[in-house]
Amino acid sequence: MRDKRIRKLKEDVYRANFELVEKNLVIYSFGNASGIDRESGIVVIKPSGVDYREIAPDNMVLVTLDGEVVESELNPSSDTKTHIELYKAFSDIGGVVHTHSLHATAWAQAKLPLFCLGTTHADYFYGEIPCTDVISDEQIARGYEKETGTLIVDTFKNIDYHTMKGVLVACHGPFTWGDDPQDAVFMSDMLEEIARMNFMSALLNPEAKNIKRTLHDKHYLRKHGENAYYGQKGNA
Amino acid sequence: MRDKRIRKLKEDVYRANFELVEKNLVIYSFGNASGIDRESGIVVIKPSGVDYREIAPDNMVLVTLDGEVVESELNPSSDTKTHIELYKAFSDIGGVVHTHSLHATAWAQAKLPLFCLGTTHADYFYGEIPCTDVISDEQIARGYEKETGTLIVDTFKNIDYHTMKGVLVACHGPFTWGDDPQDAVFMSDMLEEIARMNFMSALLNPEAKNIKRTLHDKHYLRKHGENAYYGQKGNA
Amino acid sequence: MRDKRIRKLKEDVYRANFELVEKNLVIYSFGNASGIDRESGIVVIKPSGVDYREIAPDNMVLVTLDGEVVESELNPSSDTKTHIELYKAFSDIGGVVHTHSLHATAWAQAKLPLFCLGTTHADYFYGEIPCTDVISDEQIARGYEKETGTLIVDTFKNIDYHTMKGVLVACHGPFTWGDDPQDAVFMSDMLEEIARMNFMSALLNPEAKNIKRTLHDKHYLRKHGENAYYGQKGNA
Amino acid sequence: MRDKRIRKLKEDVYRANFELVEKNLVIYSFGNASGIDRESGIVVIKPSGVDYREIAPDNMVLVTLDGEVVESELNPSSDTKTHIELYKAFSDIGGVVHTHSLHATAWAQAKLPLFCLGTTHADYFYGEIPCTDVISDEQIARGYEKETGTLIVDTFKNIDYHTMKGVLVACHGPFTWGDDPQDAVFMSDMLEEIARMNFMSALLNPEAKNIKRTLHDKHYLRKHGENAYYGQKGNA
Repeated sequence: MRDKRIRKLKEDVYRANFELVEKNLVIYSFGNASGIDRESGIVVIKPSGVDYREIAPDNMVLVTLDGEVVESELNPSSDTKTHIELYKAFSDIGGVVHTHSLHATAWAQAKLPLFCLGTTHADYFYGEIPCTDVISDEQIARGYEKETGTLIVDTFKNIDYHTMKGVLVACHGPFTWGDDPQDAVFMSDMLEEIARMNFMSALLNPEAKNIKRTLHDKHYLRKHGENAYYGQKGNA
Repeated sequence: MRDKRIRKLKEDVYRANFELVEKNLVIYSFGNASGIDRESGIVVIKPSGVDYREIAPDNMVLVTLDGEVVESELNPSSDTKTHIELYKAFSDIGGVVHTHSLHATAWAQAKLPLFCLGTTHADYFYGEIPCTDVISDEQIARGYEKETGTLIVDTFKNIDYHTMKGVLVACHGPFTWGDDPQDAVFMSDMLEEIARMNFMSALLNPEAKNIKRTLHDKHYLRKHGENAYYGQKGNA
Repeated sequence: MRDKRIRKLKEDVYRANFELVEKNLVIYSFGNASGIDRESGIVVIKPSGVDYREIAPDNMVLVTLDGEVVESELNPSSDTKTHIELYKAFSDIGGVVHTHSLHATAWAQAKLPLFCLGTTHADYFYGEIPCTDVISDEQIARGYEKETGTLIVDTFKNIDYHTMKGVLVACHGPFTWGDDPQDAVFMSDMLEEIARMNFMSALLNPEAKNIKRTLHDKHYLRKHGENAYYGQKGNA
Repeated sequence: MRDKRIRKLKEDVYRANFELVEKNLVIYSFGNASGIDRESGIVVIKPSGVDYREIAPDNMVLVTLDGEVVESELNPSSDTKTHIELYKAFSDIGGVVHTHSLHATAWAQAKLPLFCLGTTHADYFYGEIPCTDVISDEQIARGYEKETGTLIVDTFKNIDYHTMKGVLVACHGPFTWGDDPQDAVFMSDMLEEIARMNFMSALLNPEAKNIKRTLHDKHYLRKHGENAYYGQKGNA
């Protein structure tokens, strides 16, 4: 049973990592996707520094929530501890993705949040996409990767991670999450697309700020929650 | 007779939706093309939230101008009511397209019209491409999608929709229309191209405004109207 | 003899038009390449408004330097008279290309010349690439396409068209020329590439102006003229 | 023995030149990659001005560190003397690459260094990527290509070329180097990617400067040096 679930998860995580390359969100080995089997507490993640052309479902690495590698010969992604912190704090997410995608990273390097400038954003991210503070020297010294997770979790003190499934880590790049690895990839792709649009909007009109709440709600809630009427859900 | 026309229209609308993806104007399910059979008053439109890889002529949705779905099992695009308002107000158009194409949306998010800065624009859009006001809270409460159509129609009070076949909806994105679905797709593609050029021109020279009327007329009228001399029309 | 040369020229012009699409310098039917057979004074040019997928060597149009169509059933490009003016004034060029390529057109819309900011430019264009004035109302009334040619020729009063094989027509787009149609296509491609680089350089450093003459000469003259030492010419 | 090494190097250099085109770092013949066989002091480099589609391992040119062509019929790249200066001054590098890649060249034309704005940069380049002064008239007169090498070497007076494997030559473009030709290509690709990100970050936030040393060290040193823990090195 557990074996079957883990096998399926390895395939999902492999595919998620592969999609990051296909969608141009990752070049070389600059990114990682993971998934978790909540029942056993096993996180499945990409091995560290392995070329995307060489990865396969079978070399995905298994790690416990304590960070211990199990049943694997390769080192897990160097960002594994960040993923684990997110799985611990955001108790019902099933997948995490980290990339250095071009436009999202450009905003992270500018240390600026992504205002909600339009309905493309409002459809998928509820509110502005936050940018963390720059990680402190103490945190770097204490454990860089784990503390990057803490930094994100702290940033979400007053933000609901269910409706805001992404963040920019200042001077670093984006992290996203979702119900499963594929959902987290989708959020990375949307975040990149929004970062790309907003780059241009911000240059054309530096005064542009968050759209009004009524318009934001309309769009988010027609796609999400019990009154959603977008798509084919209410149908059939 | 009607059946044959509708079957043809379903194919045209399907193809139009497909072309939006091919031309990189739409990612995921972010856009929709429709067409109308004026004789029967039937609008054919993409189903809501269906991946472009799964759509086919047969799952295009039929809707009356009163918004009632006929002969279809899928929900129509959530923007159907906007399309219907345009078909009602612009009485001889045959196709409508909505996208979140990158550059046009960036301008819509900046809440700025597209000045006519050059002959590429002048060839296809007569005058500056307008940007609507932000939709009011009353309109959102009254019926968001229908009122988005009203907002566009109001914006065209003093503009001829025959020579200006596109608009930017503030904080949202572009809508275009034309003689048939393919023409509306073409206008979306041209609008995106112009938005892309103008983004750069505006940054290089913020003073650049509409070109003079004489030059604008020259270009528009050599391609359109009875004195047009572009192409092979007068030939044969 | 003449027939053989013309047949070859039709193929060259066809290929040049095709390359404009392949190199992403032209979308739809937005551009045209031509060539001239100096001995007979015959200009071969793309037909007007014909989709690039439908053109072939045999439907290239033949026109005399007086603008008369010969041996052809299709209308020539609407910009034919501009090409003819250039062939008349620039007496030893063999090919002309006009595009609405994205970045070059953005600069033309901004009504700004392209400063020579670096060696990429210096290798192929000697001096800054000029931008014409906006065409006057009188010129538009007198004959738009012919006068566009005159406008370019006037702009080159003090510029040598042998070492500056391109121009931006204000509010319109680029024209380039060369020894033959392929050379003109190459210059269009280089002009677009330089416009793209310079767009970014100009935003990063608005103070950046023409590089100094010594550096410019070094680069241009190592590739052009009798002291050139680039490539394999002196070899073999 | 030497013959076998040289044959291998010709293949590596050929492949490096080919990758520059595949990775969109070079168009036409705008760039060159070389490698050195330290034992014999033979530099292998691309021939000058030859189209990338026509190069092959066998027409790579062999040159001594004195600049003399050996065993080759083609002229070496016109930038050969720059490569040689770098091989002489940076005594343990094995490959050099020069491109006119779009974004890196835009920065070089703006005469600005690339600040280290984030971890993507910090992972591969230790410190800000320097931009040289504009080459002096005396240097141009004395020998342009050789002096371009001197200019780079002078710029590195206080910079360690082992941890900073790239430079922008003002008004010209980037040079990179590495352990072998492939490593130099990789550095060119990373430099271009960083130039692209930084272009956007700099426009969004002109105040953005180098990230703090602690964060920079953390990233660089987790990938490089004896305490590196990224990848699979410590494993197996």
